Amino acid sequence: MAHYEKLKNICDGRATAAPAELCCYAADGSQVKGKPDFVVFPQTTAEVSQILAYADTHLIPVTARGAGTGLAGAAVPVKGGILLDMSRMNQILNIDINNIQVTVEPGLVADKLNDALKPYGFFFPPDPGSAATCTIGGQIANNASGMRCVKYGTTKNYVLDLEVVLADGTVIRTGSNCLKTSAGYDLSRLYVGSEGTLGIITKAVLKIAPLPKFRKLIMISFPSPENAGLSVSRVFAAGVTPSACEILDKTSVTVLTKLDPDVIFPRDGDVVLFEVDGSSENAVDESAELLAKACEEISSSILITNDPVQMKEIWDARRLLGAAVSKLDPTKTRIYVGEDLGVPIQKLPALIAKVYEITNEVGITPMIYGHAGDGTIHVGLFIDVLDENEWKKLDTAADKLHLAAISLGGTVSTEHGIGAARGAYMEMQCGPAFTVMKAIKKTLDPNGILNPGKLGLS
Amino acid sequence: MAHYEKLKNICDGRATAAPAELCCYAADGSQVKGKPDFVVFPQTTAEVSQILAYADTHLIPVTARGAGTGLAGAAVPVKGGILLDMSRMNQILNIDINNIQVTVEPGLVADKLNDALKPYGFFFPPDPGSAATCTIGGQIANNASGMRCVKYGTTKNYVLDLEVVLADGTVIRTGSNCLKTSAGYDLSRLYVGSEGTLGIITKAVLKIAPLPKFRKLIMISFPSPENAGLSVSRVFAAGVTPSACEILDKTSVTVLTKLDPDVIFPRDGDVVLFEVDGSSENAVDESAELLAKACEEISSSILITNDPVQMKEIWDARRLLGAAVSKLDPTKTRIYVGEDLGVPIQKLPALIAKVYEITNEVGITPMIYGHAGDGTIHVGLFIDVLDENEWKKLDTAADKLHLAAISLGGTVSTEHGIGAARGAYMEMQCGPAFTVMKAIKKTLDPNGILNPGKLGLS
Repeated sequence: MAHYEKLKNICDGRATAAPAELCCYAADGSQVKGKPDFVVFPQTTAEVSQILAYADTHLIPVTARGAGTGLAGAAVPVKGGILLDMSRMNQILNIDINNIQVTVEPGLVADKLNDALKPYGFFFPPDPGSAATCTIGGQIANNASGMRCVKYGTTKNYVLDLEVVLADGTVIRTGSNCLKTSAGYDLSRLYVGSEGTLGIITKAVLKIAPLPKFRKLIMISFPSPENAGLSVSRVFAAGVTPSACEILDKTSVTVLTKLDPDVIFPRDGDVVLFEVDGSSENAVDESAELLAKACEEISSSILITNDPVQMKEIWDARRLLGAAVSKLDPTKTRIYVGEDLGVPIQKLPALIAKVYEITNEVGITPMIYGHAGDGTIHVGLFIDVLDENEWKKLDTAADKLHLAAISLGGTVSTEHGIGAARGAYMEMQCGPAFTVMKAIKKTLDPNGILNPGKLGLS
Repeated sequence: MAHYEKLKNICDGRATAAPAELCCYAADGSQVKGKPDFVVFPQTTAEVSQILAYADTHLIPVTARGAGTGLAGAAVPVKGGILLDMSRMNQILNIDINNIQVTVEPGLVADKLNDALKPYGFFFPPDPGSAATCTIGGQIANNASGMRCVKYGTTKNYVLDLEVVLADGTVIRTGSNCLKTSAGYDLSRLYVGSEGTLGIITKAVLKIAPLPKFRKLIMISFPSPENAGLSVSRVFAAGVTPSACEILDKTSVTVLTKLDPDVIFPRDGDVVLFEVDGSSENAVDESAELLAKACEEISSSILITNDPVQMKEIWDARRLLGAAVSKLDPTKTRIYVGEDLGVPIQKLPALIAKVYEITNEVGITPMIYGHAGDGTIHVGLFIDVLDENEWKKLDTAADKLHLAAISLGGTVSTEHGIGAARGAYMEMQCGPAFTVMKAIKKTLDPNGILNPGKLGLS
């Protein structure tokens, strides 16, 4: 408790070691569990610096947490120690439209940034499904993305500069306020996606983009999931870059119709929701037509709409999908494992076929949806959590799914990260490059205090 | 010479130590000089691996070179040793439109890639001025960019995966063929811009993009360079993302008119060439109008054109500018120092004013042009190279220009890189982050064989 008192003191009393409160910090959206020894609530970079310097000296693990919406346990302190709750460093420090950038603190909730930018006609494009609750710091640490990243890119494309506290308390800036620079190693990109294992982000300068003025939704159904997967590369090859490209297999559509029997979704197959956007109505119309034409031959039905009510209904339904899966069978619960697979887009049909094959073999019904435009599919696996046998099936399925993605030249995570849930696959996926990652980790965190037990590093 | 024989053997005889040939490898486009001990011409990754393993064991410096078009000496072997001429590894290995990517060898000339992609309606967007001769490997090692990066982003935005040979000969892949991944540290981005100091790139998987179908050029003149600089942030704030945004000060326009008295450029001020592009003619028209409107108040004249002949003439003139500067005074030669400054775009007017102040004080006439849309200005300084005093003036000016960029929160290089020419400014610009870069270098190249004397690292 001497450590606790010292750390509490650094944070001016903002700390807790109450067992009930610690339990609240012992999980995220995944199955990973781990209780911290105590939680501190820093409000300044100087406090974070002092905390890390102290932790480094006394070899205490430090795990940063934003909103705890992660799906791989990255913010779960699996080795105990200090939990840095970053949610009080949540200010927008500067909105600088003339330099098309903002400066924010890491605990800021993503949607709040977009609410603040809207009156200026700008937005911060990376849009994880958790944007209503997740923090910008978590988004950066995880290189988060979402439905619109197929056109706009992931978080890493928007980070101009980070203020980072290193393991020993040193504070660095990884970039600058310039939109372009070629001066040494790109440390900003190294920290994006590093899941708190190389330093703690305390400030971020982010590039923003003008909000598109027009959108159009093209909902297409296909006679098979393979055709749905195929549509994606056909659209790209036709020269259209959609602003969203979401695949929902038949099971996903069934889930949505159980939730709302009148939902505007075709019942005749696997569905891809395409969206095109832009600053000109004509351009959006033209892209929508070109896109529909590229899919015509292999599809069952096509709906094109720019009716805002209809579009909202369809997107709201899509967003509910991850949670709504319980409607399929109320006795079963969705568990997030093997849920974030990625492959080169042309291999989507092969991956989809493989998911059905594996889950069929194991005996679990899958729901497949995801951001097909960048090769992501989310697999929803749901089990009776009281049945131990079902848990075993689940683990087997998840393992086989990860191996399938890797064997197709893919990735075990496109946007949810590695955390503690997928560390075991890093060596297999990355090969000798994983040794380079381990060497970098050792160099920047020699005492191993920063989020130990993550990324398969320790 | 035992080393030479051994290395020549690895490359099946493809090597030279002839003094005349070595001289050809002793410089690039900058003032940096340094002769290698011998040149080898690898044709495979295995050969590069064997060369590095040998060099690492025998502590021989290794410098990779593409086409030698660099402007900071990054490819100049300032510490002697082995020069790896990568120009024979120059194949396009795969054009994969369905996965919107290509796989290429590093010695491929940039324009050749775009020539090969054109029939498919695709292109590789990063467009350095040297694209007709520079290699993709150099472009990656330098995070090169150019006129259209204001909309399309720099090289780093297009690198999906690199095959890299580490200092000890180990071969790694830094990424994958997936368009999106969130699995550990982003080593691809670490290698982009690392100037051959962390490993040798032997293969690259690059994302490509659909070619825009329509373009429009908006040439605007301004009563002062400050107004020209101001126009850039006004255009962005209006929500327009131009596909090019090139500033040319009065001196630059004078150079062009000396080259061709009939050239279509306004004579009444400093000029910004804006371009907008897209897949729809209407959208391009609308953006052009919006852009012109945003600049109207502060400009002297506006020309909007989509006439291909006129557009070609204007862009050709712009491209000739860097070389054409000698027309201003045939007794003077342009020397590339202090030529690649960057600031946040709103600080462009301040930087431009500072450039005039510094060069006036030192007594050198500057020419200012560059990619204003991302905060880059290229400064053309020209001197009588036979006059020693002029060289001194030049050094003084370059130093002051670099310091001015840093003091405005900017960068000493936005796209030409650091090399041996700008290493002295790294610590000042990067602060404690430079220590992190040095630590990473030490970890990945413990014997310091990879391009020593660059990035201010040694």
